[in-house]
Amino acid sequence: MVKTPKLLPGERFDDLNCKGYHVIQNPDSFCFGIDAVLLANFANVKPGKRVLDLCTGSAVIPILMAAKTKAGRIDALELNEEVAERAKRSIEANELENLVYITQGDVCNAKKIYGNQSMDVITVNPPYMTTDSGLHNPNDAKNMARHEVYCTLEDVISQSSALLKEKGTFFMVHRPSRLPEIFHHMVKYKIQPKRMRLVQPYIDKEPNMVLIEGIKGGGAQLNIDTPLVIYNKDGSYTDDVPKDE
Amino acid sequence: MVKTPKLLPGERFDDLNCKGYHVIQNPDSFCFGIDAVLLANFANVKPGKRVLDLCTGSAVIPILMAAKTKAGRIDALELNEEVAERAKRSIEANELENLVYITQGDVCNAKKIYGNQSMDVITVNPPYMTTDSGLHNPNDAKNMARHEVYCTLEDVISQSSALLKEKGTFFMVHRPSRLPEIFHHMVKYKIQPKRMRLVQPYIDKEPNMVLIEGIKGGGAQLNIDTPLVIYNKDGSYTDDVPKDE
Repeated sequence: MVKTPKLLPGERFDDLNCKGYHVIQNPDSFCFGIDAVLLANFANVKPGKRVLDLCTGSAVIPILMAAKTKAGRIDALELNEEVAERAKRSIEANELENLVYITQGDVCNAKKIYGNQSMDVITVNPPYMTTDSGLHNPNDAKNMARHEVYCTLEDVISQSSALLKEKGTFFMVHRPSRLPEIFHHMVKYKIQPKRMRLVQPYIDKEPNMVLIEGIKGGGAQLNIDTPLVIYNKDGSYTDDVPKDE
Repeated sequence: MVKTPKLLPGERFDDLNCKGYHVIQNPDSFCFGIDAVLLANFANVKPGKRVLDLCTGSAVIPILMAAKTKAGRIDALELNEEVAERAKRSIEANELENLVYITQGDVCNAKKIYGNQSMDVITVNPPYMTTDSGLHNPNDAKNMARHEVYCTLEDVISQSSALLKEKGTFFMVHRPSRLPEIFHHMVKYKIQPKRMRLVQPYIDKEPNMVLIEGIKGGGAQLNIDTPLVIYNKDGSYTDDVPKDE
């Protein structure tokens, strides 16, 4: 299933431990984290549905969703040209060219690129930090992935609202510290938050991630799951964390 | 400290198990719940500060705050005339007339009653349910306490924003299902959510209450505590629940 790709200097070909899928990463640029894995697991996609992953980076979320769902088509948008090109090679290496389509482009143009109300599901693991929080080099790929250099939280949510069909589903992972802004913009752009799960590193530690599901045009009723806890006290993963398959 | 008051038919004089304080309640009308106790415990009030409790009901929150804080003055607003009159008798019975001042009036007029930027701290345990969720008799005191008959969540938050001094503090207990609306309105009216604690009945049960602290004009950074769990598996209270004093 997997063809070993040509790797550029600095690149690795990492096993995702999920049905044989791999991803090309360059540790000098940006490597995916457990947040992407948790988001791919949190996102329910019904068979045949059209999915778009924004801020896709190495395309780890589309690859995991190709493994875990029966999505009809998965599009993925990445701004950084080098990162988008690397993501395309990952898709080819996994022989997913007929399911996952990488586009290099700006989230702020996403509705122009894909069309209004074109998507059943949107997933996004956006930059967590605003540009006023410790930004050094705005052109660096790591900074683009971590800071809102080219797209703000409001851009991500407003574009997603335009892209989603009525009753389409929006899945995002973010920092709990930004929950007020997230909910403010989701309500403003009529993606009603319907489900939320906080992620705590340990049972007695404050959450450091939050998984959110919204429905475009949904009713005002949020369900909050019990927290997802990453580690047992002995440092092993809890049963909440997706296991290798 | 406590004078036994004259009780009207149907009324009880309940010991709050907190420094000898009591409250008059009529079970046919509405009795306070653990949410009020948790809110009074969650609310930090520095010595000398001016506090307003909105939707005060039996005034249980002002009485508990009189016990637990060194507030300079505590005002409390209640719409229902019969409930407000009962609250006044509770304040007299506890000999708190020189600290706690009950006013009968509408939350929607609160800034007219008390004045813009008059308060350091606002506490509120508002009706949890919208009027379209199972309302039967809008004149009944229980329904007024539970449903947004006379004030909406937006009224409570917009009035609180006007009443608070810059950097004044807002404490609310509510249902987690309404968190998106709560944060939407808090951000809109510039009471920045700064701290949140979900309340779960048991460690493995979804939360059914949420405690929120906001700062008027505060910066955009929410801290989320680990969940407050009410019951141990054997049905006894956990250490998270305020103990009798």
